[in-house]
Amino acid sequence: MEFDLISRIRQRAASRGDVVLGIGDDAALLQPTPGMQLAVSMDTLNSGVHFPETTAPADIGWKALAVNLSDLAAMGASPAWCTLSLSLPSPDAAFVDGFLDGFLALAQQHDVALVGGDTTRGPLSVCVAVHGLVAGGQALRRDGAREGDEVWVTGTLGDAAAALDAMLAGAVSDRALRARLDRPTPRVEAGRALVGLAHACIDVSDGLLADLGHVCSASGVGARIELDALPASPSLARFAAPVRRPWQAGGGDDYELCFTAPPAARDAVAEALEAVAVRASRIGTITAGSGVVAIDAQGKPWQPPRRGFAHFA
Amino acid sequence: MEFDLISRIRQRAASRGDVVLGIGDDAALLQPTPGMQLAVSMDTLNSGVHFPETTAPADIGWKALAVNLSDLAAMGASPAWCTLSLSLPSPDAAFVDGFLDGFLALAQQHDVALVGGDTTRGPLSVCVAVHGLVAGGQALRRDGAREGDEVWVTGTLGDAAAALDAMLAGAVSDRALRARLDRPTPRVEAGRALVGLAHACIDVSDGLLADLGHVCSASGVGARIELDALPASPSLARFAAPVRRPWQAGGGDDYELCFTAPPAARDAVAEALEAVAVRASRIGTITAGSGVVAIDAQGKPWQPPRRGFAHFA
Repeated sequence: MEFDLISRIRQRAASRGDVVLGIGDDAALLQPTPGMQLAVSMDTLNSGVHFPETTAPADIGWKALAVNLSDLAAMGASPAWCTLSLSLPSPDAAFVDGFLDGFLALAQQHDVALVGGDTTRGPLSVCVAVHGLVAGGQALRRDGAREGDEVWVTGTLGDAAAALDAMLAGAVSDRALRARLDRPTPRVEAGRALVGLAHACIDVSDGLLADLGHVCSASGVGARIELDALPASPSLARFAAPVRRPWQAGGGDDYELCFTAPPAARDAVAEALEAVAVRASRIGTITAGSGVVAIDAQGKPWQPPRRGFAHFA
Repeated sequence: MEFDLISRIRQRAASRGDVVLGIGDDAALLQPTPGMQLAVSMDTLNSGVHFPETTAPADIGWKALAVNLSDLAAMGASPAWCTLSLSLPSPDAAFVDGFLDGFLALAQQHDVALVGGDTTRGPLSVCVAVHGLVAGGQALRRDGAREGDEVWVTGTLGDAAAALDAMLAGAVSDRALRARLDRPTPRVEAGRALVGLAHACIDVSDGLLADLGHVCSASGVGARIELDALPASPSLARFAAPVRRPWQAGGGDDYELCFTAPPAARDAVAEALEAVAVRASRIGTITAGSGVVAIDAQGKPWQPPRRGFAHFA
């Protein structure tokens, strides 16, 4: 534990009304809202595994919180508090300052209070735990998809994977694509807007096919995806379809929401997402059976040439 | 994320009645008890920094949860849920099984449900977040010590530091001492018993003098400690006083509770701790001013020849 670094963090951390005691004691004290359930998620990012070693400290800070907020978004929960454990090879105040620039900018956007954690010596690694609130019984889960549901995805897919592939190939990636890799946008407002409308939801972190596969196995259903329906950003649309499809269908790190909803809710879903200024596309349907099938323009099943970005790959 | 390892963890994780949704979705869903506040703490253990690289997987698992439960103990909170993020150089199922043996044995003792987290590739590192419950306004804090309070410590001090020093010197440490280093006992029941009695509390992780110093600076007071009053285990008592004192006063990793209480509460404290079978010793008093002074048998101020075990040291 490095007390100078901790006091540096403590000085910059904002609070909120339900934080009884923040950074500085053995534990934070928090006052949950009566009637609300707590959604808790924790993710670690290791240097060279979850972000390139050349990533700017502010981008590491942003992403470490973003991937966790994305988990809360996928549950339809409102973010409230987070804790941060930062392992650094040496007590590098400049790194911590940069890291906090990104981390706290995103925290402020979503009114998340940083309430505790630690700093330790070790290889560069960031572990964040986030806590959100959601009304009892209202959380979006993976296990609610039903046969006949339509499958939707927010935003666009494949940008982050395209940027990563460019970087791994030693090429300079398009600035817009790289921003999707380094500074993903957690779809917090979209997730909240889908409460009461979506049957199931997940965030796309391992790749669309893999993540939708998790929804299908949790729900005991299958899915059929139309490849041509997968949304692409203007930057990605410049690539020919056979090039960009593996990124869109198999690439991870987009942190969009993939969700299912009954056809009768189609207009309500569109309106709810429009109200929070998030674009969404219908990309397929939930079927009986199991597994995810991707169908090309000729109606033939399509297999990605590589699997989604997997840690431990 | 390694799905085989996660399913291995999921299969063995116990639940509790207030866990709405455990491992397997984007976030866990938990139902806080009405009227209770949430105490949240998070600590990371890195291999070679917070535990020797030769530590058995089961001991790493035990210790990773123990140091976090110790933080809840210091707040007087009752442990409820935890999340675990495990970084491993390779997806080593045997390591995970051993790790869980220790981790889950301690979790079971304190009825803590493991509800989420992740496994990732990276240098061996364990991050745990724990969540406890404590009645509103009842938590033990660092900032409540008052002039005239007596300073107490549970159990005995210095065993873990003695074992660490022996190990670092290449010697075989006494088995009882080594057990204190590898399998610390979080004083959860003692912390709970002190609610309403203690004015301030902290767990001894950085060393008694350092940790009591945190209490003093948070409370705006000083403290005077009688060196001869520091409790020693039978194994440690075999060492001459000048040898064992630095371990007792400055060594970390004991995870005993150091707390302050008014003299009028002396009998009540003794009875409350006796009821949970935890020994405690009065070791000094809270004074006006600031800083911690340790006094030897001749009434002279004593300085430790080395500082408490500090990460980033």
